[in-house]
Amino acid sequence: MRAGSRLPSVRQLADGSGVSRDTIVQAYDRLVAQGLVGSRPGAGFFVSAQRSPTLRRAATSATPTLSADKAFDTPFLLRSMFRTQDDVRFDGSTGLLPHSWMDHGMLNAAVRAVGRSAGAQLLGYGAPQGYAPLRQQLAAYLLTQGVAVDPEQELMTVTGVTQGMDLVLRSLLRAGDTVLVEDPTWFMVFGLLRSIGVQVLPVPRRRDGPDMEVLERLARTHRPKLFITNTAVHNPTGFSLTLAAAHDVLRVAEQQDFLILEDDTYADFHPGQPVRLATLDRLRRVILIGGFSKTLAGSLRVGYLAAAPERLRALTDAKLLSGLTSPELGERVVHRILAEGQYRKHVLRLRERLDSTRHRCLRLVESLGLRLHQEPLAGMFVWVDTGQDTEVLARKAAVQGLLLAPGVLFSANQQPSTMLRLPVSLADEPATLQVLSALLSQ
Amino acid sequence: MRAGSRLPSVRQLADGSGVSRDTIVQAYDRLVAQGLVGSRPGAGFFVSAQRSPTLRRAATSATPTLSADKAFDTPFLLRSMFRTQDDVRFDGSTGLLPHSWMDHGMLNAAVRAVGRSAGAQLLGYGAPQGYAPLRQQLAAYLLTQGVAVDPEQELMTVTGVTQGMDLVLRSLLRAGDTVLVEDPTWFMVFGLLRSIGVQVLPVPRRRDGPDMEVLERLARTHRPKLFITNTAVHNPTGFSLTLAAAHDVLRVAEQQDFLILEDDTYADFHPGQPVRLATLDRLRRVILIGGFSKTLAGSLRVGYLAAAPERLRALTDAKLLSGLTSPELGERVVHRILAEGQYRKHVLRLRERLDSTRHRCLRLVESLGLRLHQEPLAGMFVWVDTGQDTEVLARKAAVQGLLLAPGVLFSANQQPSTMLRLPVSLADEPATLQVLSALLSQ
Repeated sequence: MRAGSRLPSVRQLADGSGVSRDTIVQAYDRLVAQGLVGSRPGAGFFVSAQRSPTLRRAATSATPTLSADKAFDTPFLLRSMFRTQDDVRFDGSTGLLPHSWMDHGMLNAAVRAVGRSAGAQLLGYGAPQGYAPLRQQLAAYLLTQGVAVDPEQELMTVTGVTQGMDLVLRSLLRAGDTVLVEDPTWFMVFGLLRSIGVQVLPVPRRRDGPDMEVLERLARTHRPKLFITNTAVHNPTGFSLTLAAAHDVLRVAEQQDFLILEDDTYADFHPGQPVRLATLDRLRRVILIGGFSKTLAGSLRVGYLAAAPERLRALTDAKLLSGLTSPELGERVVHRILAEGQYRKHVLRLRERLDSTRHRCLRLVESLGLRLHQEPLAGMFVWVDTGQDTEVLARKAAVQGLLLAPGVLFSANQQPSTMLRLPVSLADEPATLQVLSALLSQ
Repeated sequence: MRAGSRLPSVRQLADGSGVSRDTIVQAYDRLVAQGLVGSRPGAGFFVSAQRSPTLRRAATSATPTLSADKAFDTPFLLRSMFRTQDDVRFDGSTGLLPHSWMDHGMLNAAVRAVGRSAGAQLLGYGAPQGYAPLRQQLAAYLLTQGVAVDPEQELMTVTGVTQGMDLVLRSLLRAGDTVLVEDPTWFMVFGLLRSIGVQVLPVPRRRDGPDMEVLERLARTHRPKLFITNTAVHNPTGFSLTLAAAHDVLRVAEQQDFLILEDDTYADFHPGQPVRLATLDRLRRVILIGGFSKTLAGSLRVGYLAAAPERLRALTDAKLLSGLTSPELGERVVHRILAEGQYRKHVLRLRERLDSTRHRCLRLVESLGLRLHQEPLAGMFVWVDTGQDTEVLARKAAVQGLLLAPGVLFSANQQPSTMLRLPVSLADEPATLQVLSALLSQ
């Protein structure tokens, strides 16, 4: 039909087609919403002169193409993580568990339950600290984990651990400040720190915690404002802090007067209660950040941040300025899953599966000739030594459609590295394993 | 029951109470989730030694108390906007339409529909640019509004207009840069700019657009990087840009080489197609930001940002760094409401009600002796002259539990002002009107 031509009236079409008028009205409404049809009051519906943007242009994507000569910087790997194109055929870099492990039935049921009543409550902006019943439930959960937090004064929600970190770093740091990080560290942290312009000094991460000799020396000579640490089930090594190391870290922080950002992302993969700095310190110097991307669903974007009352007030103001409130819909979904007691059981199931898969994965990577300096006891990653520069390896892999997370990404100074972070779910991906195996034996 | 004492087994309790075992299991799960009960595998359920945080501490809130001596700065008014305490008995400052005007049935239905299938799709992190079908639908909607945007290359979702602005300002500006804003301007903008440390210069906002003589002079002498403008249905004045003014603004931007951030928050309250800079400029110099907080629901936190492809890629990277992706759940809800054609009809209804309420409100404020310099033709605010310093008035009002938005908040230099922003829905709030009336006649 040509632009400007009139569509049959609702009545005509309903009578002619034997379909109800309501259905025709709904169909016309959708065409209008797509911009394909326009309505003129009293005159009916007409074919639009404009074409919808979908048809007007070929769909081309702003996400990058994998190629061997791309710089493996943080934004590149980040964009790659989120790609929808199919030039990543094998993913050896994922930071999420396989979708088939997750409980989407539980998620759907929670969303529907929220949809039975939430509409009226969503109309306002919600609370800047986040949905209050979720904060109560989180405080109860953290208490079972040994962390005592006041849900009114010391807890706020964030749209994931990354937003929590971004708020903390922007609030606490100024260009020129010094920050200590672990080596290796989740690469996102470097991207955040670089955008602020701070000096970043790495502290080697050992099996039991940070290298105390280095931590103490750097703290004494560089007066850092902050130490960022992923204490429990560390990404990428899978190591967890010991009580003695926790005590030592807090002692140095006290002496040298720096704050600690404790990343709790993977703690639920630790059996029982992992050691947390926040448990010992009681939020005097520690800001604890956690979330549900790894255990429930990545695109829910629900996390939390716990800090001392005064610090939390400043961070709540920062959250307000950077986007008012966090979306309450997802917070209500997580609240429901926690409150019904489903979360605890779900995490237990995930952990059992993760542990057995990791055992298989460890055997497999050893059979590929990859070396483990220390075996991880928990978590979704293995951190292996390939004996070759993994940035070079990752470039070769990219050509074959295999995305890898090379060691250089986890290094504060972007040092060349022979290390590689692999997801334990690789054990269930024979095709990806085969491509990796062929690459390693070249 | 004392801490440590054992609860009856599921079987005992089910048999004794005539309730099914499933129900008892669910009840125990919830008690465990609240931290009131602990379970030991094989040994049953026990009363926890720890008390839940709710019971442990009196509920005290981190939100501020209204008092006459509080500074009326941006964070204060922001926190006040989101208060839950009941010392605000009358709200004369709200930036949202009354809840009773909104369609929460439509929202609930959309959430439930999303919950029928979304779970599996929520498991990943989603696309950094936002849920692709929503972007398609937004592009179609913007095209009906005269703005041509490529949904793949030029459009991304944000968690509301505030996040969009925060991303743009942090990406484009450095401390010491100069930014032009309108006078008056939505106070949140100043908070964002202050946190970056830029020089902020006000350009008076006239009925037809910014004061061109001032804009041109400041642009020539101060070489700003950016001009922030709320073109259609300006907050707080309700003015909308004319075509001639739009052409002039773009001409000066071209000559003096600055970018423009166009805030589209209230545009859907304009009849037909309001004039947008983005329509004329086709995103060469303009970044357009809009959202659904005013028309659908504040705590959905769904908005969008349109910019030229290269600029959008940089902003997508900034979005990734500041929180990975935006929550897809809300984006799916908004997509559904747009795609079904409900949004257009809902906005028409809102606009009709808003227009008639505004007419009544204008008569009422005039009867209170408040003066309108120019009558607003659209939108949810009236910007009135009280003839007295409204910061002083707002302090007096606070004592009586009435929250007001004084003119000083909308001034880049925090100049004392006799202006006051009132919500048009005040026309339906006789109690609030009475308190205001009594205050004004003191």
